[in-house]
Amino acid sequence: MKLYQISGTRIGLPPPVQYGMVDSIGMFPKLELNAESEVPLYRQLYERIRELVGSGALQRGERLPATRELAGALGLNRTTVSAAYALLESEGLVQGHVGRGSFVLAEPRPGSAGLGWEQLLPAPDALSAPAPAPSGAISFATSRPSEDLFPMDDFRLSCQEVLGEPGAASILQLGSPGGYAPLRHYLLEEARREGVARPGDDVIVTNGCQQALDLLQRVLVRPGDTVLVEDPVYPGLKNLFLRAGAQLAGVPVGRDGIDLEALERLLERGRPRLLIVTPNFQNPTGATLPAPARRTVLRLARAAGLVVVENDIYGELRYEGSPLASIKQLDEAGDTVLLRSFSKLAFPGLRVGWVIAPKPLANRLADAKQLADLHTDQLSQAVLLRFAVSGRLLEHRARMLAAGAQRLRAVLEACERWLPPGAAFTRPEGGMNLWVRLPEPLDAAELLNRAQRAGVSYLPGKYFAVSRQEPGALRLSFAGLAPEEIRAGLAILGEIFSSELARARLERFESAPAMV
Amino acid sequence: MKLYQISGTRIGLPPPVQYGMVDSIGMFPKLELNAESEVPLYRQLYERIRELVGSGALQRGERLPATRELAGALGLNRTTVSAAYALLESEGLVQGHVGRGSFVLAEPRPGSAGLGWEQLLPAPDALSAPAPAPSGAISFATSRPSEDLFPMDDFRLSCQEVLGEPGAASILQLGSPGGYAPLRHYLLEEARREGVARPGDDVIVTNGCQQALDLLQRVLVRPGDTVLVEDPVYPGLKNLFLRAGAQLAGVPVGRDGIDLEALERLLERGRPRLLIVTPNFQNPTGATLPAPARRTVLRLARAAGLVVVENDIYGELRYEGSPLASIKQLDEAGDTVLLRSFSKLAFPGLRVGWVIAPKPLANRLADAKQLADLHTDQLSQAVLLRFAVSGRLLEHRARMLAAGAQRLRAVLEACERWLPPGAAFTRPEGGMNLWVRLPEPLDAAELLNRAQRAGVSYLPGKYFAVSRQEPGALRLSFAGLAPEEIRAGLAILGEIFSSELARARLERFESAPAMV
Repeated sequence: MKLYQISGTRIGLPPPVQYGMVDSIGMFPKLELNAESEVPLYRQLYERIRELVGSGALQRGERLPATRELAGALGLNRTTVSAAYALLESEGLVQGHVGRGSFVLAEPRPGSAGLGWEQLLPAPDALSAPAPAPSGAISFATSRPSEDLFPMDDFRLSCQEVLGEPGAASILQLGSPGGYAPLRHYLLEEARREGVARPGDDVIVTNGCQQALDLLQRVLVRPGDTVLVEDPVYPGLKNLFLRAGAQLAGVPVGRDGIDLEALERLLERGRPRLLIVTPNFQNPTGATLPAPARRTVLRLARAAGLVVVENDIYGELRYEGSPLASIKQLDEAGDTVLLRSFSKLAFPGLRVGWVIAPKPLANRLADAKQLADLHTDQLSQAVLLRFAVSGRLLEHRARMLAAGAQRLRAVLEACERWLPPGAAFTRPEGGMNLWVRLPEPLDAAELLNRAQRAGVSYLPGKYFAVSRQEPGALRLSFAGLAPEEIRAGLAILGEIFSSELARARLERFESAPAMV
Repeated sequence: MKLYQISGTRIGLPPPVQYGMVDSIGMFPKLELNAESEVPLYRQLYERIRELVGSGALQRGERLPATRELAGALGLNRTTVSAAYALLESEGLVQGHVGRGSFVLAEPRPGSAGLGWEQLLPAPDALSAPAPAPSGAISFATSRPSEDLFPMDDFRLSCQEVLGEPGAASILQLGSPGGYAPLRHYLLEEARREGVARPGDDVIVTNGCQQALDLLQRVLVRPGDTVLVEDPVYPGLKNLFLRAGAQLAGVPVGRDGIDLEALERLLERGRPRLLIVTPNFQNPTGATLPAPARRTVLRLARAAGLVVVENDIYGELRYEGSPLASIKQLDEAGDTVLLRSFSKLAFPGLRVGWVIAPKPLANRLADAKQLADLHTDQLSQAVLLRFAVSGRLLEHRARMLAAGAQRLRAVLEACERWLPPGAAFTRPEGGMNLWVRLPEPLDAAELLNRAQRAGVSYLPGKYFAVSRQEPGALRLSFAGLAPEEIRAGLAILGEIFSSELARARLERFESAPAMV
């Protein structure tokens, strides 16, 4: 049997290639790998050896071939063999002894003897892995409200009232996919009063905005469909659509939201299915789309037959300036799909968001919701409804706006004061996030480690990137931190960024060629 | 341009066929349809005419071509044109006058002028539509616990305790995809004590069992994969996997659970990916898989490299006989994936279930969960944990078992007494459901209407069918009804079934050919 050399990339290999097949290297048993498989070669090799151990073909104490030897025999890179051995070692199946080689140590662990889960499961995609939640005493990493501001007494009262009513047991009974009827009714009435819901619209309650996006993906997106998203964008949105097999096209976001000329070019080039846009205090940039631009988005979308999904979870958190009409409000055809949530005002642990959409779509979303998880938790729906209709939500919102205004001022002043010269940052009028661009050659991802050791964390720009890489970019989520934490955190970050900048410039200076 | 006649089926048409294109029928504008589209032709036609009205190309009062005329010009069946006109009429865009034809009535309704949602949305699949929830004073239609049995005082107390603790605000804060850590810890410890969780296992909290199935589908199933399910089976499972593009193969369920010989044949024929099995009190049949059969399932699955998902949401509800070891307990390799839930004991409105699975799979499920909806509602997780660790769950379970035993006895006695001769029914020892087969020629779906008019409802067998159609079958969910309701409901059903049987037999007798 012919052996093939790895050709750098596996894309483009001719279809029926069997990758390497070795009858024996000394006493080593036969191995078969398949270059056409989606499973990486090192994992296939790991699996085969694991099976040999599991079946008893390789016994405790036997020596595995040297990596160089096995690589040569199978036509693999030596690093591929090393990676497989490392995995076997990490599972305690094999032990490496420097200079002597690797030896079979034990049976596979109980708990994984039968199935090879590593092979069975699709490989996790590094790009679409969820962003990590960095730790740190002062965390600018999460876009969520501060729990110190949760009105716990009002919440307890709302809970008590809901559970004290005569029909309370029916709330804890199985509910309806579209949501708890009294909450839906309330949300729809509120939306009508605001002018965002039209007679043809309906409301579907979801487990927060994340599930709203997931249900839209299930109903509207087929593998290969193009979806237009902001660039940079919230990773949970990007990763969701990537996993669903969509092609993402990023519309660059500047200080004034998405770039309309870029949007127009993207619409001319292809036939995208969806545009997802966050017109108010976009995550991660904090940018807001001006009113005329909102009308342009609608005009372009209508001409292109594009579904516009307006993610408006931050809209209620305006600390300065005047509110703008939402795209949904401006849309006379009524086709815009509006996403909202309680989670940015309070209690994000209670997963309750909602979609306002034309009825034909709302009905399909409810069908998808039924298959996804039957319905949203009813206790939380009922308690949040009580919290809202009792007027407690409005009171809480007023306090959140006051606190948010302080925090926004604090973060802007601290950025001015502590970020090194050459750094740029957005100036949102609300929401939870602002976007910082550090001067070259600073790399926000590389510096995160140092920041975390100093007790401060943030999310580097790379987690938000769709197609534009900005190594110097990072997101500061300020709304969950008290003003004094914001100041202390930015002082530390400023110090790290400035000293690194000085070091890098000195290095560049020192390594510059002599002037002759 | 050549016109094509519809050829009965659209499968197998040559790729680049443009379906019909008409420049004018009298003054009627140009129309283009595409035979290769996934959108049915009548919908395409409907959409085109709708666009013509929207754009003003067709004005109020104009006459549409006669169906025969347009069908001939486009090479369509006349029924296709009629269907498009009917849809336009139902939207109020067109009005038909007998003998005079169809006239443009109005602009499209505001709220759907821009996008054609009907065309944009994938056609709902009749087969995979969720089962309706029939109404009726006495409903045997839903497999859920009775809210009259919910221990509301204990629930209120659990809520109060959770919200009264010093760190309560952190429960209402954003949580972790895998679940509320104290609940996960508790569930894992309990599962270890029972011997169902091994050292290599972990727990992931889901929004009930339905979401557990959805996450497994996301992680393990690709379009075209074969999934083995029970036949008959819970519709929410069947529809979920069908929507995900899986091929379902039904393993027939008899009195003693799935048919092992059929399972073996299915494993020989193909390479299925998953087997989902409910060994205790299966929904809809109530059947329980005996202990030796559980071992056989494991042996067959291991030989075939099949992932076994054990849906055990009814296992705790055993009213008679001795509990059996779960498949997960018997699985020495530890690969079995176990699904559990609080929802069948109490409070199904609080969507909390969990998966016990080998860690590599559990990690992927948590990733999928994060993309689906970030995490499960934390208030419900914390309250149910409190409800469990306080001992209230055990007390409640004892009461549920006592009530369930009464209800089971009541339904079995009432079936004996009221079902017509020739009817058969299962005799579960627990759970919530039993399965009735009415004698021929009774059709449970046809009789449902009559039953509902008489104030009783149930679910006909067709909603549960995978590949075996049993017109006489129906599910009786008895656990949510008090014994007197069960007796009254079955008396009514028995009367309807018996009278219909007598009528059908008389008719058959009367229409029999004369003996000559």
